[in-house]
Amino acid sequence: MRTSAQYYKDLKKMKPNLYIGGKRLGRDDVRIRPGINVISVTFDLAQEPKWQDILTMKSSLSGKEVNRYTYPPQNPYDLLQKQKMIRLLTQRVGGCIQRCMGYDALIALSIATKEMDEKYGTEYHERFMKYLGYSQERDLVAACAQTDMKGDRLKRPCEQPDPDAYLHVVDVRDDGIIVRGAKISITMAAYADEIIVLPTRALREQDKDYAVAFAIPADWDRVHLVTRPVWVRKRKAIKAPFPEYGVSDSMVIFDDTFIPKDRVFMCKEWEFGRRLALLFANSHRHSYSGCKPAISDMLCGATALVAEANHIERVDHVRQKLSEFAGGAELAYAAGIAAAVYGEKTSSGTFFPNPVYANVGRRLMGETIYHEFNILTEVAGGLSATLPFEDEFIHEKTKPYMDKYIVRNPIFSPEDSHRIWRLVEDLIASPMSAWYQIAGVHGGGSPIMETITLNVEYDYESKKNIAKYLAGISKELDQSKDLSIEPVFGEHQENY
Amino acid sequence: MRTSAQYYKDLKKMKPNLYIGGKRLGRDDVRIRPGINVISVTFDLAQEPKWQDILTMKSSLSGKEVNRYTYPPQNPYDLLQKQKMIRLLTQRVGGCIQRCMGYDALIALSIATKEMDEKYGTEYHERFMKYLGYSQERDLVAACAQTDMKGDRLKRPCEQPDPDAYLHVVDVRDDGIIVRGAKISITMAAYADEIIVLPTRALREQDKDYAVAFAIPADWDRVHLVTRPVWVRKRKAIKAPFPEYGVSDSMVIFDDTFIPKDRVFMCKEWEFGRRLALLFANSHRHSYSGCKPAISDMLCGATALVAEANHIERVDHVRQKLSEFAGGAELAYAAGIAAAVYGEKTSSGTFFPNPVYANVGRRLMGETIYHEFNILTEVAGGLSATLPFEDEFIHEKTKPYMDKYIVRNPIFSPEDSHRIWRLVEDLIASPMSAWYQIAGVHGGGSPIMETITLNVEYDYESKKNIAKYLAGISKELDQSKDLSIEPVFGEHQENY
Amino acid sequence: MRTSAQYYKDLKKMKPNLYIGGKRLGRDDVRIRPGINVISVTFDLAQEPKWQDILTMKSSLSGKEVNRYTYPPQNPYDLLQKQKMIRLLTQRVGGCIQRCMGYDALIALSIATKEMDEKYGTEYHERFMKYLGYSQERDLVAACAQTDMKGDRLKRPCEQPDPDAYLHVVDVRDDGIIVRGAKISITMAAYADEIIVLPTRALREQDKDYAVAFAIPADWDRVHLVTRPVWVRKRKAIKAPFPEYGVSDSMVIFDDTFIPKDRVFMCKEWEFGRRLALLFANSHRHSYSGCKPAISDMLCGATALVAEANHIERVDHVRQKLSEFAGGAELAYAAGIAAAVYGEKTSSGTFFPNPVYANVGRRLMGETIYHEFNILTEVAGGLSATLPFEDEFIHEKTKPYMDKYIVRNPIFSPEDSHRIWRLVEDLIASPMSAWYQIAGVHGGGSPIMETITLNVEYDYESKKNIAKYLAGISKELDQSKDLSIEPVFGEHQENY
Amino acid sequence: MRTSAQYYKDLKKMKPNLYIGGKRLGRDDVRIRPGINVISVTFDLAQEPKWQDILTMKSSLSGKEVNRYTYPPQNPYDLLQKQKMIRLLTQRVGGCIQRCMGYDALIALSIATKEMDEKYGTEYHERFMKYLGYSQERDLVAACAQTDMKGDRLKRPCEQPDPDAYLHVVDVRDDGIIVRGAKISITMAAYADEIIVLPTRALREQDKDYAVAFAIPADWDRVHLVTRPVWVRKRKAIKAPFPEYGVSDSMVIFDDTFIPKDRVFMCKEWEFGRRLALLFANSHRHSYSGCKPAISDMLCGATALVAEANHIERVDHVRQKLSEFAGGAELAYAAGIAAAVYGEKTSSGTFFPNPVYANVGRRLMGETIYHEFNILTEVAGGLSATLPFEDEFIHEKTKPYMDKYIVRNPIFSPEDSHRIWRLVEDLIASPMSAWYQIAGVHGGGSPIMETITLNVEYDYESKKNIAKYLAGISKELDQSKDLSIEPVFGEHQENY
Repeated sequence: MRTSAQYYKDLKKMKPNLYIGGKRLGRDDVRIRPGINVISVTFDLAQEPKWQDILTMKSSLSGKEVNRYTYPPQNPYDLLQKQKMIRLLTQRVGGCIQRCMGYDALIALSIATKEMDEKYGTEYHERFMKYLGYSQERDLVAACAQTDMKGDRLKRPCEQPDPDAYLHVVDVRDDGIIVRGAKISITMAAYADEIIVLPTRALREQDKDYAVAFAIPADWDRVHLVTRPVWVRKRKAIKAPFPEYGVSDSMVIFDDTFIPKDRVFMCKEWEFGRRLALLFANSHRHSYSGCKPAISDMLCGATALVAEANHIERVDHVRQKLSEFAGGAELAYAAGIAAAVYGEKTSSGTFFPNPVYANVGRRLMGETIYHEFNILTEVAGGLSATLPFEDEFIHEKTKPYMDKYIVRNPIFSPEDSHRIWRLVEDLIASPMSAWYQIAGVHGGGSPIMETITLNVEYDYESKKNIAKYLAGISKELDQSKDLSIEPVFGEHQENY
Repeated sequence: MRTSAQYYKDLKKMKPNLYIGGKRLGRDDVRIRPGINVISVTFDLAQEPKWQDILTMKSSLSGKEVNRYTYPPQNPYDLLQKQKMIRLLTQRVGGCIQRCMGYDALIALSIATKEMDEKYGTEYHERFMKYLGYSQERDLVAACAQTDMKGDRLKRPCEQPDPDAYLHVVDVRDDGIIVRGAKISITMAAYADEIIVLPTRALREQDKDYAVAFAIPADWDRVHLVTRPVWVRKRKAIKAPFPEYGVSDSMVIFDDTFIPKDRVFMCKEWEFGRRLALLFANSHRHSYSGCKPAISDMLCGATALVAEANHIERVDHVRQKLSEFAGGAELAYAAGIAAAVYGEKTSSGTFFPNPVYANVGRRLMGETIYHEFNILTEVAGGLSATLPFEDEFIHEKTKPYMDKYIVRNPIFSPEDSHRIWRLVEDLIASPMSAWYQIAGVHGGGSPIMETITLNVEYDYESKKNIAKYLAGISKELDQSKDLSIEPVFGEHQENY
Repeated sequence: MRTSAQYYKDLKKMKPNLYIGGKRLGRDDVRIRPGINVISVTFDLAQEPKWQDILTMKSSLSGKEVNRYTYPPQNPYDLLQKQKMIRLLTQRVGGCIQRCMGYDALIALSIATKEMDEKYGTEYHERFMKYLGYSQERDLVAACAQTDMKGDRLKRPCEQPDPDAYLHVVDVRDDGIIVRGAKISITMAAYADEIIVLPTRALREQDKDYAVAFAIPADWDRVHLVTRPVWVRKRKAIKAPFPEYGVSDSMVIFDDTFIPKDRVFMCKEWEFGRRLALLFANSHRHSYSGCKPAISDMLCGATALVAEANHIERVDHVRQKLSEFAGGAELAYAAGIAAAVYGEKTSSGTFFPNPVYANVGRRLMGETIYHEFNILTEVAGGLSATLPFEDEFIHEKTKPYMDKYIVRNPIFSPEDSHRIWRLVEDLIASPMSAWYQIAGVHGGGSPIMETITLNVEYDYESKKNIAKYLAGISKELDQSKDLSIEPVFGEHQENY
Repeated sequence: MRTSAQYYKDLKKMKPNLYIGGKRLGRDDVRIRPGINVISVTFDLAQEPKWQDILTMKSSLSGKEVNRYTYPPQNPYDLLQKQKMIRLLTQRVGGCIQRCMGYDALIALSIATKEMDEKYGTEYHERFMKYLGYSQERDLVAACAQTDMKGDRLKRPCEQPDPDAYLHVVDVRDDGIIVRGAKISITMAAYADEIIVLPTRALREQDKDYAVAFAIPADWDRVHLVTRPVWVRKRKAIKAPFPEYGVSDSMVIFDDTFIPKDRVFMCKEWEFGRRLALLFANSHRHSYSGCKPAISDMLCGATALVAEANHIERVDHVRQKLSEFAGGAELAYAAGIAAAVYGEKTSSGTFFPNPVYANVGRRLMGETIYHEFNILTEVAGGLSATLPFEDEFIHEKTKPYMDKYIVRNPIFSPEDSHRIWRLVEDLIASPMSAWYQIAGVHGGGSPIMETITLNVEYDYESKKNIAKYLAGISKELDQSKDLSIEPVFGEHQENY
């Protein structure tokens, strides 16, 4: 397994294909460092013995312990551990751990390549498994580039005025393919080793050029990353973990880019566009059942802490509000657990979470994220938006005033009081705030997408049958479909 | 295992101690029949081979297959099956299956009696296990009488102006005890074989006379049941399952009632008042993770069906609303699953659900029940409240008009259209509607009770530690407490 | 002005054309008496000097003081007084005062008849004004029959499989017209003097036969009322105002019914279908800004009272909940006030409320009605659904127990404690509960209808212009359209 | 009336007592310029003839037309115009117009000084009126410094460990007083001419030193402003109004500051602490019924615009969401109108809004602000958080890609598409976003403060009386208290 130092060394070797603030740059730009710090934690904790059960797993490819982020779950226990790993790491960096994207892409490809081969006699799965082995051995970090620019939202890919609105195959050669298009909102692409490209939606036959999946190094030729980093204001005196972490998103532009054959995992199999898109989405929504509870944990903790700083921690409405975090976090976490327990062993061997539970959990968190910021705001008070800059806590004229007045609850020293308010500012009134709010709604699929998925996946007919039976319209009620599903669990687990 | 016919025969033998509408009555009164019909289903389905995995389990007391309602869960799988059983039965009777109360009382007593013995060297557990064996062998149905009249809600039991506001021990004799007080809102007491009495709250030493638990036959001497039955309007021509089911609640009055020693399971052990009350409450809240999803299923199915009757089933806002049922039902069900997977083996051998998950699930359903009625109302339209009586669908003058005008979507015949609207009326505009709304809020603990429980059980400190670490107030973050809990599952299940 | 005694005498003279429970009946049936009691209050209070400013107004038709329910508002003050009258009366009968329907129909017709005449040179307005004078002089009570059976909700009237799904003109004769169809959910038709029929929706030219409006006596030939009365359980000993009041809804069937010419106010003017339907709907939604606050007032008062009976009236979450009633009631009432202040003088002289405010107010209440029941339920506790019948408070064996245990807060006597719980039962667990819930959502237009109306009436363009200006897409921001509207008020009132 | 140029010239003359980023600065610092631009609009529009009815009023002090911000409302029409002025200006600067604070302070002082004189025979009112005349003549801009640092939130001022946690009088001299303490979250203090200090809460006799109100120039001796400016990222090429505006908040420190006698408007009259604090709060909450609707207007407009840019403006759920803005904005605006119509003429002549309506309106907006951001986020999509920097739209290598891919709906040019997304970024993902969210919750009083105010001001007794009457507990229902209040309106306006 790589160390974070090796990871950073590898990044610095890459060709400069980032564009930030009107300049072409390499991976040593200071503005992407907060994102690199986040990914580093996924290496660092995998080295700590106490977390190895959670951060590593034994690969049946190599027989070795590998970083859990490099090997798809094989049974429900792996899904539970994945969820736990994500909650652990997200708590620790105070935000999105980012590496799940690439992991969920690997999971989705492991299944879809097998299924395509079963249907078409292609050889994608073997090709992919080689790539997986390569990637696992090097402990690589991948971004997943799924979301296209999309153009007109009411038109399908082949109907767009600009055919490049969705990424597509423009040529097929013996040694590979040529692709064009752009992917947007691609988190961590700027400091990933690899970029994995997946289709973003269901496709029809006319759209078949848009059915394409592949993986390439992130500094590949004719790949341009237009990157927007997000970070919080640098601290001068009161250093702390939170402001060391951050994120970058990129627009990833493919301008007639060549993709070698052994890196292509789907090419024109349009019937699998929807399947592959949903496999990624549903796996990623399950990942959110680990990270969103951790975001709630952090907001809950900050709310509890600032309540104490205001000395209102015993007030009724504050306690009621704190319990809302518990409700949100644990219902979403429970949905992830249920998704594991009622998951499915696919033909590829990868164990996949139950999509209904993955979607109800993710949707809940997407619906409540702004409300959670609202709670912290209510309890913190207006000071979170009007806190004087750190410099004023340093300047000789103003420091005495700051130290005197920042203390509300004398159990906290002026410095700790200041630290609390500064954290609250970073959480709810910094550039990261908006990023968490917006990613909280849209990352992995906005609530409207989960509703659409549920309207497809959920068995409304069995519910209607209950009504028909109770109304006397049907004489019998067949409940077996809904209720005969066995948990993958307990005495039944020997199958896996 | 008993049949429903035997159950009814046993009921009819009981002494008449019901008071309904100003009369003293036995169990043959027609107004409690809908409740009896509900309980009967728990016997009938246990006889059907296809449901035996769910409705029965092997008792280690007798080595025999017994009704699941008579033997506490021994492992997480039993909890999952309990949840599934409840969802199955609740769907089938279109409402509360009622028998869980007594089951959860048995579960709570199995644990608390053991723990009291461990602490005090009493012999409650053995006594209780005998009672459990007796009860199991006869396949008895028990009501659980927990909620006291309570008097002034801001005063503890011993501070009440009327000492009988909470049920208490008034005398201890060699052969048993004398108790006085009244329990209110006791569902199914009127057609239970037994009544199990539990304390309703945490107690202090001064309250020790209020620490009392026991079980007696429901027609016991000096026990009076003031009963309020609820049922929907009788059908004349279009019979259907739904209107055959209903419920009765009783005020159970103990007026210096003698309880024989072998039926007493707690007597003045005030330190266990809170424990026993919470064991019942939390087990019962876990039961709700089975029944409330089924109530949602039924409302969801009725909404989908009436949407079709209105021919608006494809309309966007209707589909959005349908998906809200999916979200509510499956999040609560997931909470029940998580409560099982992260549950605990108690010293008594009974496997107990994780209280945090049991509470977040139950609270969610208590918060959304009125909203779910709102959705069905919105989709059904005003007709549900203004539907002419069934007689008008029979009377020769009005029948032709009714048959002509009741059809909105011609895929449904006049009769089926009528059946749909009549079901909707029964669901949202009958005496049962209010019962489901109010029980949906308060049964097993209202949202405010779950919030209070969460404020006790949830680990807010570990969340605050995350904030302290990220703010730089603490140097280390110990996440082991939160995240080292192993699921009782997979490779770890051999312990059970 | 009529007295309530005269009103009742007039009702009893009517021909028996009600169908209830399989029988043809007259207006003396006891089941419609609670509705008659409601209407009677609109006569009784008009006789009381202290309420005359509110319940009466001077008619410019006759120069006499008339019941406010018989003369359309002429200025914004009249709208404010209308709103106040409705809140006053609704508080007093503990529910829908019902007479607004006919009043809003008169208001709508006063405007639309004028506008049709202006466009087509018809003489509807004069005809209507005669009818208004007649109706005013006799102080008549009218039901408004707007909602058709509607059939398939996705089809227009002329596309329905059954052409009678919407009421329509089947023949035009010299002396009048013949109509066929049925109107549903027609509140108070069973004890109205008159029935006013209006179209229910926008129409196209093909639908012109469905553009019809008229008024006839409620016992008119070939008019059948299939009536569903709603009332609460009769009291035996503890009489009180609330259970004396109730409501009936009717399906009003027109089976080739002849309508004399002088009673016809629209016949095939399809372009005014939408206008007339919306005039009624928007006027009626303004009426809701009077009645819904009163319903909230009553639920608020009951919640405050039962909180006291539980002795939890000072508890934080109870006070928070009480304030939600204040918010809901007063925001809706404020919307009614704003609708008056920014209303419009129509060409007919009738002063009409601003539709945006009428709709936002009504929608709010439709969205919160179930939540308000939820609050009362939460504060009251489960007893509201399980309260023993009144008989048990009378029977000699059970009375002592009831009297002893019903008291929670000793400031209330057993009888008053009983009265409180009985009222709560009547409010949230009686047949009236569902009626208020469902009417609260759908009466006068469900939330989805107000959303649709707002999407038509609200000036989203002016809002988009703000965004375009701030984005630098347009150079100028013209705010005059939105903000130049003057209130009909203060120094500007001389115009009216 | 001053021009904005004169205002800015006056600012530049002030002594440098701002502290920003560790430096002492004057009013020419570029970071406070966006705030100055906001205030300037209140001068500029007062010069435009088309807005004079709204932005100016005739002062009875001088008989001259003055800026409306310098003269308290005298009748309900003035309150309606105040509300309209605020909505107009807020729309135009895309955010808080800021000048209301000082205006509401003048309004509060005009009333409270009169009432104190009436009670104590003091001469505050005359003194204040002189100050008002002076301020009006010079068209001065004032910040209102109300919120103290507060220390321990559960302790009263005199109980605080640090007596300076609330600002207080430390000495009374013949020519004035000496004060010490700090006020926090004081918007626009950095570019105000004057600072008006008011007490922040109810006081007891022991707290009498904390009962103090006065006004001084913002650069007064021993007054230090620790200022935190907020602004959005500077534009390089696509200039637009929105990024020109912004805000600064200051901590205003008084360190044994001398206040001359003619500037002191309250000194130790502790019984009026609550009154003066609430007069300001309630007047300011009424101001929010003008500005919050404008914020909603802007967010609504941006949502409608970006929906069009995504070409989803006709999609059902988008239209539903747009209508939520209409509901929020117009209910709050209606509450402001009702507060005017049912307002009160005080003994000072100032006309004051009804506090119940002012509070229900403000609370609604405080509860929905985060939700409104949520809606815009949902409709805009993730791009709002990941939009590449403006530089990338300029750099020769990346510009062609940006221009090509930014267009979704071809009715918008690349530049206009870019402008739209940039505005959305500025609105929901810039430092201003958090400011609006947090100010939306807390500015003028957070929802919990309005709930507390309502629990004091709202007549719950009259509601309880309705329940008592309907339950039969009281025989009579006196509705006159609630319903006899006349609107200050129509035929009754001659009094004003």
